[in-house]
Amino acid sequence: MRTVVVTDPPRADPGAVDALAGFGVATVHEAMGRAGFLGPGIRPVHLGSRVAGTAVTVLSWPGDNLMIHVAVEQCRPGDLLVVATTSPSTDGMFGELFATALQHRGVRGLVIDAGVRDVADLHAMGFPVWSAAVSAQGTVKATPGAVNVPVSIGGQVIRPGDAILADDDGVVRVPRETVADTVKAARAREEKEEATRTAFRTGELGLDRYGLRDRLLELGIEYVPYRDGS
Amino acid sequence: MRTVVVTDPPRADPGAVDALAGFGVATVHEAMGRAGFLGPGIRPVHLGSRVAGTAVTVLSWPGDNLMIHVAVEQCRPGDLLVVATTSPSTDGMFGELFATALQHRGVRGLVIDAGVRDVADLHAMGFPVWSAAVSAQGTVKATPGAVNVPVSIGGQVIRPGDAILADDDGVVRVPRETVADTVKAARAREEKEEATRTAFRTGELGLDRYGLRDRLLELGIEYVPYRDGS
Amino acid sequence: MRTVVVTDPPRADPGAVDALAGFGVATVHEAMGRAGFLGPGIRPVHLGSRVAGTAVTVLSWPGDNLMIHVAVEQCRPGDLLVVATTSPSTDGMFGELFATALQHRGVRGLVIDAGVRDVADLHAMGFPVWSAAVSAQGTVKATPGAVNVPVSIGGQVIRPGDAILADDDGVVRVPRETVADTVKAARAREEKEEATRTAFRTGELGLDRYGLRDRLLELGIEYVPYRDGS
Amino acid sequence: MRTVVVTDPPRADPGAVDALAGFGVATVHEAMGRAGFLGPGIRPVHLGSRVAGTAVTVLSWPGDNLMIHVAVEQCRPGDLLVVATTSPSTDGMFGELFATALQHRGVRGLVIDAGVRDVADLHAMGFPVWSAAVSAQGTVKATPGAVNVPVSIGGQVIRPGDAILADDDGVVRVPRETVADTVKAARAREEKEEATRTAFRTGELGLDRYGLRDRLLELGIEYVPYRDGS
Amino acid sequence: MRTVVVTDPPRADPGAVDALAGFGVATVHEAMGRAGFLGPGIRPVHLGSRVAGTAVTVLSWPGDNLMIHVAVEQCRPGDLLVVATTSPSTDGMFGELFATALQHRGVRGLVIDAGVRDVADLHAMGFPVWSAAVSAQGTVKATPGAVNVPVSIGGQVIRPGDAILADDDGVVRVPRETVADTVKAARAREEKEEATRTAFRTGELGLDRYGLRDRLLELGIEYVPYRDGS
Amino acid sequence: MRTVVVTDPPRADPGAVDALAGFGVATVHEAMGRAGFLGPGIRPVHLGSRVAGTAVTVLSWPGDNLMIHVAVEQCRPGDLLVVATTSPSTDGMFGELFATALQHRGVRGLVIDAGVRDVADLHAMGFPVWSAAVSAQGTVKATPGAVNVPVSIGGQVIRPGDAILADDDGVVRVPRETVADTVKAARAREEKEEATRTAFRTGELGLDRYGLRDRLLELGIEYVPYRDGS
Repeated sequence: MRTVVVTDPPRADPGAVDALAGFGVATVHEAMGRAGFLGPGIRPVHLGSRVAGTAVTVLSWPGDNLMIHVAVEQCRPGDLLVVATTSPSTDGMFGELFATALQHRGVRGLVIDAGVRDVADLHAMGFPVWSAAVSAQGTVKATPGAVNVPVSIGGQVIRPGDAILADDDGVVRVPRETVADTVKAARAREEKEEATRTAFRTGELGLDRYGLRDRLLELGIEYVPYRDGS
Repeated sequence: MRTVVVTDPPRADPGAVDALAGFGVATVHEAMGRAGFLGPGIRPVHLGSRVAGTAVTVLSWPGDNLMIHVAVEQCRPGDLLVVATTSPSTDGMFGELFATALQHRGVRGLVIDAGVRDVADLHAMGFPVWSAAVSAQGTVKATPGAVNVPVSIGGQVIRPGDAILADDDGVVRVPRETVADTVKAARAREEKEEATRTAFRTGELGLDRYGLRDRLLELGIEYVPYRDGS
Repeated sequence: MRTVVVTDPPRADPGAVDALAGFGVATVHEAMGRAGFLGPGIRPVHLGSRVAGTAVTVLSWPGDNLMIHVAVEQCRPGDLLVVATTSPSTDGMFGELFATALQHRGVRGLVIDAGVRDVADLHAMGFPVWSAAVSAQGTVKATPGAVNVPVSIGGQVIRPGDAILADDDGVVRVPRETVADTVKAARAREEKEEATRTAFRTGELGLDRYGLRDRLLELGIEYVPYRDGS
Repeated sequence: MRTVVVTDPPRADPGAVDALAGFGVATVHEAMGRAGFLGPGIRPVHLGSRVAGTAVTVLSWPGDNLMIHVAVEQCRPGDLLVVATTSPSTDGMFGELFATALQHRGVRGLVIDAGVRDVADLHAMGFPVWSAAVSAQGTVKATPGAVNVPVSIGGQVIRPGDAILADDDGVVRVPRETVADTVKAARAREEKEEATRTAFRTGELGLDRYGLRDRLLELGIEYVPYRDGS
Repeated sequence: MRTVVVTDPPRADPGAVDALAGFGVATVHEAMGRAGFLGPGIRPVHLGSRVAGTAVTVLSWPGDNLMIHVAVEQCRPGDLLVVATTSPSTDGMFGELFATALQHRGVRGLVIDAGVRDVADLHAMGFPVWSAAVSAQGTVKATPGAVNVPVSIGGQVIRPGDAILADDDGVVRVPRETVADTVKAARAREEKEEATRTAFRTGELGLDRYGLRDRLLELGIEYVPYRDGS
Repeated sequence: MRTVVVTDPPRADPGAVDALAGFGVATVHEAMGRAGFLGPGIRPVHLGSRVAGTAVTVLSWPGDNLMIHVAVEQCRPGDLLVVATTSPSTDGMFGELFATALQHRGVRGLVIDAGVRDVADLHAMGFPVWSAAVSAQGTVKATPGAVNVPVSIGGQVIRPGDAILADDDGVVRVPRETVADTVKAARAREEKEEATRTAFRTGELGLDRYGLRDRLLELGIEYVPYRDGS
């Protein structure tokens, strides 16, 4: 493991990142061609938030939050902290003192592939958190790791400065170079979905709207009336 | 796998299904002799709903929601959509556009042994969902499956037209032929429980009310005073 | 397995237990030197409660709640019921009738390494529950177990009369002999944290406050500017 | 739960069942149109066996093997015991004494969605076992269940008398009515696979043999040379 | 967490521990009244060993094997190392160098509620291992823990000097004070089982041998002939 | 998701890759500074193999092995196939026909973050496999993915042409640029370990060899004699 702190990584354009927060995680994931989702294992502790920010990344040893302390100093307004561990861990590496320090620096939230604690306080503070676990288990500050190197969560690689969008559906990563394009694609998708929504509200079927009836034929799907015993 | 859409299956009596919604899942499960529960793996995304409906069943390929589009057309007012996959999957196969289409048709909710997305929207729409996962991960429309065939979730078989009851305790299936009887049994159980509740509120013990003291003797359970070191 | 009911175990001092409820689970866990946490597998069904009580312990057979009935009689005001099973189980061993009986006796809540049901009712009653699962699955009353013997959950041993503190971060156990000392240590910790909180609010860094910069040097952590491709 | 023992269910044709053992589980699953597989959660304790038999089914309470005793009496030569529990359990419900009794009756093996024990003895006896767990944890004989009712494991329904085939890839169920047809389809598939195998051994590609190159075009898959940074 | 090394704990009688190795884990678990089993999560990496020894216990920080180094010095011939971690971990804390050092000291094997590595070497050396995981992931030597304090694995408490028996069914703990009695009870159980085995080999049924037919009647289990559709 | 096939990626030096196979996965992971391990979730189906090769990477849709067919054509002698899926899947995407085709091309094995089947045949063929699951469940060929793009498994990113080493401890990735250096570091580590092994065989302790006694003092670890009740 590299034991390094990378300073001043390029960050995604702040305006584009803010625009990203106008869309849901599922929409943005679709707009990128079904990519970038960090998987169902990273969940909000409390439902009801949506936030976008630029990633400051941390790679920590399990049971050790030393590198989160290091990372705080690297954070700027508009960032979102993203923490991975070198092996699976549920420990409560992050709590309200960290959130206090991060809020002072304008950090918008936390995504962590490990545990968090003080979750009632975090909620009261309005500091949103997406995590793999909730755990009061404390950690030490003994073993080195890295800050602002690429980290991997749920099969996705997050580089420092990438845009992160999180809501009740989970977390998606947008490469820092393509945030504006992704916003455009998300807007286009949403407009298309709005038309579909209107159609569905008046009874049109997806089978017709998406032209799926031919595919059903090709695939050999048969319609048969119900018979006893089936 | 059969690639078939069964049309017009018999449905449980609507009045009986509506009456079912007057009871909790645990009560109905007990009233059927401790049967029909779909297990602890299917959970509401948001707590606070209770709904009963008749099952329209879907068997889908993992990562593919084609058959849900097919199923929408088979739904009628009072139905509840029940989705299983041919192998374990957490993908977000269902979102608010589907819910929009289903609400138009009078469908009351979704039970899915896979993932859902747009969960904030689903909650805002008042479309209740019980699922195995929440995931923004999108799906394709490429592989056939079946609609209105028996599906199995959590060790329970759900046939099209069976009654489904879901609340904060999970989901229970009632065979379509026995819904009225189950409602009766649930009512009887609830009356008995109300009497027990009253007794418990005034200090009666379950040991006495259920006549368990003799059983403790038979089982050789001993009462011993506390001693140091134990 | 011992099939025994131990009566009148010593209980932690009630005043000290009540004082414990003034602190969070994470704080008390830290105040004991990072000990006593029951792990991330025991979670509140509803967020938002904090409760402290003295443990009445139950060891039950999976799928069987006979011993919970036995335990009710052993409960006193200020107690908190703690249930373990002899092998892993998710069954809904506990519901609102038990909670009714326990509230009558002044019991403050439940910690169970298995399932609970009637969770909407439990929440409405104000009876807080921490559990490994929510499940409507019912149980029988057929097989003996033990009450008020030491039980083990999440790697922690809970003896009857030990203090239990539970909140949104999970559950911690405090040995009955050391509750007052733990309260003192928690208070000291909280005062220290309050000072840290104030410092963090004005921009001090953990790196400085905890004197970590020297450690980073010892550990060989390097600061390097970002370069393309990293 | 029904507490019933169904006697003398129809069994799949013994000759067809024996023929089934000439094929692998994956082949038979494919021959049925990718159906019938009991999922990756049911695994052989020791690799290296393949067995086919007719199912005698058991539905047991967790932590209780009473109904397995009942089932032994219902077994005949050529049968294979299939055990499900009413809720998830890992307990060691089955060991070498049961295997001794079953071998006497000509039973060919066990499939169990719970735990087994005495696994070294079972292996030495040549009694093959597929299970969800290995556990020394013992069980009681206190709570009723059912024998020879349909049970559901891994999303598949197994009726008494259905054919079961198990090998190192897991377990597949063949409806008792269609075993001979399935054997035919498996044989056809194997012949086709043998031709493919020969072709692959001489360097033909699946892309050509299965005519997939056109599909790649339709799907818009591009071939691009490697560039730095990708 | 206490950071302490307890020296010279009492050990179970060596002769009794050696006698214990004549029985299987399941037998000993039953002989203690179905107690002491460390659960299905601790498994042998290679099948085919059985070993008994006296526990030297270790409580380690996740990702840190410092305390195993400390524990080696506390080991004597006939011991078996038992390692728990303060929070869930899969890291490979133990490998062949440790096994080399332990074999020199006459230690008989390892039980660890975390990961091991070098498993091919461990097998070649004849050093048996039961673990929660296999993982090449390395660890550091930075954070204190404890040696020879009680540890809890799978709901069982293991004190230093307790007897540990491990085989293909998993691991069981016998309190150091009662090993000789347990050996006696195991022998009695085995004799009884041998008689049962003989009876089963000649066709006697468990239903008759254990007198279960009356219980079936009491429990209301009905025998019914098979009917179509069931 | 990019739907692209990258041709002719640079590969690690073949001689260096072959040299890598002279070391264990744990050794190489340590030699890289405790990096590159794909985690405890990827396991050999059969123990006893060690293989090194250059990665051809595949990103597949769950339940779909189309892209593995595409990847076969990209494989050369000395390669090792590495398959990830876009969302969690256990399906048996790979079997002996694929292995036949790959052996013809000189491919040395498979690492897959999903399921495999025909495992008895794969073993008989001498084609080693590391996977997340064994499953007979078949897949379709309907949905695009990518070949030779970076994929992420267990928190590690594998680029095409990287070296992969796999043995009974799991799988490690070595960046293609640093294989020769890693071999050197592994050799140095092994020499150091051989000296330690010799020392341990004659009774030296890790506490002394690694100079850990001072650290114990610093950490405040106390040695205390055993007392009753501890």
